[in-house]
Formats: sequence, C-alpha cells, structure tokens
Amino acid sequence: MTDEQTFQQVADHFRETALLEATSAMLEWDERTGLPTRAGAYRAEQITLLSGMIHRRKTDPHIGELLERLAASPLATEGQLPITASIARLLKNFHRNSRLPIDLVEATSRATVLGQQAWEKARASDSWELFRPHLKEIFGLRRREAELLCDDGSLYDALLDQYEEGAKSEELTKVFASLRDELVQLVQDLQASRHPPSGASWQRSVPVDRQRKISHWIAERIGYQFERGRLDETSHPFCTTLGPDDCRILTRYQADYFPSAFYSTLHETGHGLYEQGLPTDWYGLPPGTYASLGVHESQSRLWENFIGRSQPFWQWAFPQMAPMSDCWQGLDAQTLYRDANRVEPSLVRVEADEVTYNLHILIRFEIEQALLSGDLPVDDAPQAWNERYEHYLGIKPPSHSDGILQDVHWSAGLVGYFPTYTLGNLYGAQLMEAMQRELGELDPLIAKGQFQPLLSWLRGTIHKHGACYHPVQLIENACSQPLDARPLVKYLRDKLTPIYEL
Amino acid sequence: MTDEQTFQQVADHFRETALLEATSAMLEWDERTGLPTRAGAYRAEQITLLSGMIHRRKTDPHIGELLERLAASPLATEGQLPITASIARLLKNFHRNSRLPIDLVEATSRATVLGQQAWEKARASDSWELFRPHLKEIFGLRRREAELLCDDGSLYDALLDQYEEGAKSEELTKVFASLRDELVQLVQDLQASRHPPSGASWQRSVPVDRQRKISHWIAERIGYQFERGRLDETSHPFCTTLGPDDCRILTRYQADYFPSAFYSTLHETGHGLYEQGLPTDWYGLPPGTYASLGVHESQSRLWENFIGRSQPFWQWAFPQMAPMSDCWQGLDAQTLYRDANRVEPSLVRVEADEVTYNLHILIRFEIEQALLSGDLPVDDAPQAWNERYEHYLGIKPPSHSDGILQDVHWSAGLVGYFPTYTLGNLYGAQLMEAMQRELGELDPLIAKGQFQPLLSWLRGTIHKHGACYHPVQLIENACSQPLDARPLVKYLRDKLTPIYEL
Repeated sequence: MTDEQTFQQVADHFRETALLEATSAMLEWDERTGLPTRAGAYRAEQITLLSGMIHRRKTDPHIGELLERLAASPLATEGQLPITASIARLLKNFHRNSRLPIDLVEATSRATVLGQQAWEKARASDSWELFRPHLKEIFGLRRREAELLCDDGSLYDALLDQYEEGAKSEELTKVFASLRDELVQLVQDLQASRHPPSGASWQRSVPVDRQRKISHWIAERIGYQFERGRLDETSHPFCTTLGPDDCRILTRYQADYFPSAFYSTLHETGHGLYEQGLPTDWYGLPPGTYASLGVHESQSRLWENFIGRSQPFWQWAFPQMAPMSDCWQGLDAQTLYRDANRVEPSLVRVEADEVTYNLHILIRFEIEQALLSGDLPVDDAPQAWNERYEHYLGIKPPSHSDGILQDVHWSAGLVGYFPTYTLGNLYGAQLMEAMQRELGELDPLIAKGQFQPLLSWLRGTIHKHGACYHPVQLIENACSQPLDARPLVKYLRDKLTPIYEL
Repeated sequence: MTDEQTFQQVADHFRETALLEATSAMLEWDERTGLPTRAGAYRAEQITLLSGMIHRRKTDPHIGELLERLAASPLATEGQLPITASIARLLKNFHRNSRLPIDLVEATSRATVLGQQAWEKARASDSWELFRPHLKEIFGLRRREAELLCDDGSLYDALLDQYEEGAKSEELTKVFASLRDELVQLVQDLQASRHPPSGASWQRSVPVDRQRKISHWIAERIGYQFERGRLDETSHPFCTTLGPDDCRILTRYQADYFPSAFYSTLHETGHGLYEQGLPTDWYGLPPGTYASLGVHESQSRLWENFIGRSQPFWQWAFPQMAPMSDCWQGLDAQTLYRDANRVEPSLVRVEADEVTYNLHILIRFEIEQALLSGDLPVDDAPQAWNERYEHYLGIKPPSHSDGILQDVHWSAGLVGYFPTYTLGNLYGAQLMEAMQRELGELDPLIAKGQFQPLLSWLRGTIHKHGACYHPVQLIENACSQPLDARPLVKYLRDKLTPIYEL
C-alpha cells in the first residue's frame, strides 16, 4: 500500500466516523428543540451508544498503526498542508482518545445528556438542589478524564486544550488580568458619564412572529445560506453542524426584550458562517473542521458586536427593520445604536454588554478551575458565584436561574470552555483591525449593507484553512500579530467615548 | 448459561439494535420535517450506514445460534407468551434477514432515501421524468429482495409478508373483489340520490394557526399523550416512533380545505395511540411492537372514520370546534356530519371518502403487483394508473402530482404495503362491532366526548399484546370472528342510507 493509499484509508475511516458524529449531533439538536418530556432517558441511551461506537472508531488500534506509519512517511513532512495537518492532528487525537477508557466516555455521555435535561428543569424551577447531584457527577467524570490526559501540566489545561489547542491557564490568567484592569477602569469612567444611553428603545415590545422574520432576514442578509441550514428556537441559543451542508442555528425570542433574539441570532449566524465556510470536501477531517473554539467565537462576536453594534450597521439596518418590527415609531438609527452600546453590569452573560461580558467569563473561569481542582466543593459553588458577582460586577443574583443555573455549559460537561469566549473577543478585535488594513475603511461597506467583502475576507483568511493551522498561528497569519488585548480595549474606548461623551 | 440467561442476552442485543433503529427513524423524521435542501445526499449516507449496522446486528450468526438453541428449549414451548412469541418471531426474522446480502440492504436504503427526496421534488414540479429512474431502481431492488425471500410463493407475497404476516395476495384479491362489487353498487345508489350532502361547509377557509390549535386539541382529547410525542408538519402525513416514549405524528394544513388536516390528524393520532399503548418495557422486542400494518391501520381508521365521521362525534365536537375555528357561523353539527360523509369519486387517496377509498387501494394493489412481476414496465405505469382511475372511479387525473406521484410509499420502497390499508378498514369495522357488543352502545359515550372507555378496550384487546399474536389471530381473538368484509359494508350502508335518504 502506498502512503497515499494509506492516507485514503485513514481518511475514509474518519469520514465514516463523522457520519456517526453528525448523527449524534442530530439527536442532540432534536433534544434541544422539542424532545417529548418523557423521552429523555431513552435519548440519553441512544447518544451514549453512539458515543461508545465513535470512541471505538477513534481509538481503533489498526488506525493508530496506520497513522504512526504515515507520521514517519515523507507524506507527513513533504505532503500538502491539508495532508500533513491531518496526519499530525489525527495522530494527536488518537493518542489522547486512547487514554480514555470506553466506560468513562460512555458514562460522561450519559451524565451530560441527563445533566442537560436536569439543568433545563432546574433552571425553569430555580432549583439548585435538582441540579447539584448532576454537577457533582459531571465534574467528577471530567476530573477523572483530566487526570488521565494530563502529563505534567494542570488538570484544567488538559481540558482546555480540547477546546483551544495549546492554550495554558497560566497565560490566560495574565491576559485576563490585564484586560480586567482596563475594563474595570472603563466601567468606572462610563458610570461617571452624565450622558449614558437610556436603553429605552430596547424596552419596546416586539411581537415574536415579527422578531422571527427579522431574525431570518438578518441571517440571510449577512450571508447565511438557508439551503444549507435552518433557524430554530431553543432555551439556550447555539449552533450545531449535522453535515457538510447542514449547519443549524438556534435562538430564543422574548417579546418584551428585542435585542435578546436579535443579537443571539447575529451571534449564532456568525458561528454558522464559519461552519458554512469550511471546505466541504474535507468534512470530517481536520482541514474541514474549525480551528478552535476561540477562533469560532471570534467569528460570532465579530458579526454580533464589532459589526452588529456599530454605527454604520444601524444606519443601514434601521430603515429596513423599522417597518418589519412595526414598533419603532419615533425612534431613529442613532438611538438604537446608542442603546445597543449601553454598558451596565447585569446578571446574565448572554445578554451582557461588550465591556462587562468579559467579567462574566472571568467569574466562570475562576470557579470552574476551583471546582475541577477540588478547592471549591460543588456544594459551595452558588455562594462562590454570588460573591464574585458582587465583587466584580457589584450586583447580587436574586435567583439561581439568573445565577449559577443560567448557562448550559457545565451541564453539558463543557469545563474549560468559557475562556474561549474572551479569546474570541480578543481575536475578533484583532481581525477587525487586520480586515480594515487590508480592505480599507469598512464603515462605508457596512452602512450600505455590503457584507460580502467582509465575509470573503474571513473566508480567505480563516474559514478556508479549517484546522490546518494551530489557532494561535492562524490568528497570527491573519492579523500579522500575536494575541494582544490592546485592540479590544482600544476598540471599546474609541466607540464608547463619543457615545458617553467621556 | 440457563435458557433464561440466553434469552436475556438475545433480548439485550435486540434492545440495543432498537436504539439504532430509533436513531435512524430520527434521521428520517428530520428529513421529512425540514432538512436543508442541500443536505439530502449526506443524510442518505447516514441512514445507509445505520441500515448496514442494523442489518449486521440482525443477522449476527452468534445471535442466530442462541435463537436456535432457545427455539429447541422448553422456554419456547412452555414459557410465557411474550417469551415464546419473541423467540418465534425473532428467529423467523433472523432467517429472513440472513437471506439478504448487506450490499442489497444498503443499496435499498440509499435508493429509498434519495427516492423520497426525488419524489418530493417530482411531486412539487409535476415531473414524472424526475421520478421515473428512481422508481425503476427501487422496484428493481425490491424485486431482487423478493426473489431472495420467496421459496415457492409469489414474489409479491414475499414482500407483503413483511407488512402483514401470513397474508396472501390470492386471498386478498378475492376479498377485495367482493368488497369492490358491493362498493361499486353503493356508489351507484348514492349517485342516484336526490339528497346528497353539499360539502359546502368544508369549503370554508380556516386559517392555518386555528387549524393547528384544533389538531392539537383533538389529538389530546382522544387520548394522545403529548409528553410522549409531538405533532409536526410535513408534506405527506405520517406517524413514526423514535423510542418507547417518543411517538410522533405529522400532518399538513390547507387553509382552504379544513378536513385535510383534521382527518389526517385524527388518522395519525389513531396510529399514535396504538404505539403509545404498546408495552414500553418490551420496546425493541416483538411484545413491544405493533402486530402488523393492517392492525395499525385499523387503529387509525377507527378514530378517523368510525368515530371521527360519526353523528355523535360531530354532536360533541361541533360546539367546541366552532369557536376555535371562528369560521363556522350559520353551520350546525348535522351539516358538518353530513358533509364529512359525502361520497364522491376523487383523485387523491388520502382525501377520499370511506366508500371510494378502497378503490384507490385496489388500483395501487393491482399496479404494484404488475410492476413487481415485470408485467407492467415502469415506463408505462402512469398510463396504467390513469386508465384504472377512469375505469374504477370514472375520473382522469389531470396531472401526475394528483396521479401516480401522489403517494410517498413507492419512493420509500414500500411495495406490498397498500393492501394493509383496506385490511385496516375491514378490521376496523369488525372491531367496532365487537366493542359495541362488549361495551354496549358507543354513541352516548362519543356524544359526550368520553373516549377513554373506547381507548381502554383497544388497549386491552389490541395494544397490550404487541406482536405476540399473528395479526389474523389477534383480530379473531378481539372480534370472535375471522376476517370478514360484511361488517364494513353493513356499517357504510347503515350510515349512508339516512344521510342520502336512499
């Protein structure tokens, strides 16, 4: 067998594995869009069965041998980038997965599916007690996994690496600390302003069926291809991929708070545009897969915030959205723009403004590190949560639903995931600067609703490369500079200074 | 290993197989409720992969050995019915499946998923040419399968047996012939009447959102458990089971023709009630599986027609539905009852009245036998279809969409399935007579919307037995009489004589 044939065999194996992974994603999508209430346990068994099958395929010793052979062949050093990257990443994943016994994989799968079901109920009924045993079990399972994966580094980094390859909590702590100092200062400056946006325009009720139309419209206008996706409703917005031509976004509507669905839709559409921009002919292999969650989040934040909360965006969007909403009589683009940039410490991360958002992440980052290490017992987590909200944001959650129960992540086993949100914000700011350097002024394009040049630039610099580069390298290639917190801080100051008349 | 342990091992194997079958059903449900248009090919690959896995599990030689051993053990003769029935049915299925090579199973799976996608497009664009090559391929694959399965009987019976165990086309032909003579005579009598129902009430437009509410309401009122199911929209109404507590019904709405969705919903709810009444602790094994498609159809027809088109039903339903529809001013229960029983030869089977419905089935039964044997080339099928519609119903389809392209079945590979619809009508009439004998007059219950006693009787005589009895035996046990066309004819004559003032 030639090296090329060996590679083909390995690629076919992982493409077939992807068919099962996409099937599991289908079961999860359905679980979160309308699974009958009593069908949860059976669904967990289905997903658990698939997770075991997938794990067996990923750790098939024969495939491991083929990958080892490929890694030692000229193909691994002299082949084209998609092939060399595939070999390197697949072998790394093979070794990592091979450390995990199947009973742990299946137990985690079952615990997280049931955990999400329990979380839904716990959140709806504001019951920490309903969720507590699930959280305990999930952190226990994830700790066992981290212990099996970590060689000499921290337990936390062993999990973080699955979401953001190469990232280290120690470095992130430093970056986040410098960012925090800048942001806390900025929040103080803003709170001293005598000209804050009132936020009144967002309080206007907009009927849900009109919001649905607006969500579909904006997703399509920025480039989302509905023939390769769909937009549905759920309790916690997300984006999921069920095949090379099937990436679905989900949002939630609140009649009395329009921006919730609007910005969730923009955010998830940003994720969807990235998925739809990955090379479909490499689906199921690294070149057809996103680079990291931080990079993914940079795409969602870019459309949601850097573009979607900009002045030219509202100049363009307002005259079109006003008739669609039919509730904005007497308002204008500038008012909506100002209200979209109102900064105010609040309880719920997904509805937080751009400045305080990163403080929400910091709280989760600190708590999940402490929960994983065992420094913080699960029983004490709500107290730790509430204390940090008082400390960093000066507010105290009145309920667990708007406190520790607000996010789906931990119930889904996603520990080490939250910091990628702030990384996404940092990458996003850097990408916007780079885009501007290369395309020229972006505002005139945005003000005319001409998003295609922006999307094309992202396709060319980020999407088309899949996971061929490590995330740090990918961002550095795109921006000609390494990770840096300054562009985000500068962007926020530049935008908010005139709004708040600082 | 004791026989009991062996049985347990076999049962676990088939329960796990059912997890995969339910997963495949999930993929198909999604395909028919809103798969992105470009995602069809990948979805076909997913379903094909699963169908191969499922087939391998069903034909696992080790399981075959265990089943043979069980069949020779005292458990197979002296065990409790669910166990003896499981052993017999599973072994029969094992032998049947083992005759089918995996390449044929996978090819059929792929061809039918793609066939259904092509059918959707062909029907929407009225293009026989789009569908023709798919139909050719599908009949070719099903013929190959029939050849492998049939020992000495007819090819057609080899397929029919999968849907209605033990049924023979020769006997069905006789029953259908006698039924046809009676029905043709009845249609003539009705057409001579000077007092036919006008059907005008059904022509009143009812907005789709109101129809949706009515559909949910009626499904729930007759006993469908929404915590174990859901109601969605599709292009061809159906019912599918995705787990022991997840049976879903699907309907379609036409604003300008209310009965379409209403009776589709009642029909599919009837199927759903059967599925929800099967013993959940036997899910994935014969005692937790429906007895046959004919029995299944008896349940759907019973709620749709025998109950849903009765006079007491409309007495009860009209005062409740009138405010919900908000379009029935000036009408009354009697008018809706009469219009629900208007008999008129028409083009579309799923909207046909109870009398002519069986003529639609007869046409399909004749054509699919001829297509399978090769007596009728696929290319000539539309002509054969149209000729029979002129011959049996006196009308000629003006388009393929309302002609040979109207049904999903053949595109899904369901050949030998149609006769079970008429069997369902015959069984339904017999069951109604038996229910009346045992429960006393049903009309007073129905007139008060008290459906629970009827459902309980069906649960006890039909649902709870799963596939423990052969369908013929099950119906005979429930009705104390063998298959008989007379109850259906009598029921139709008794109902229609006063309506048409014959």
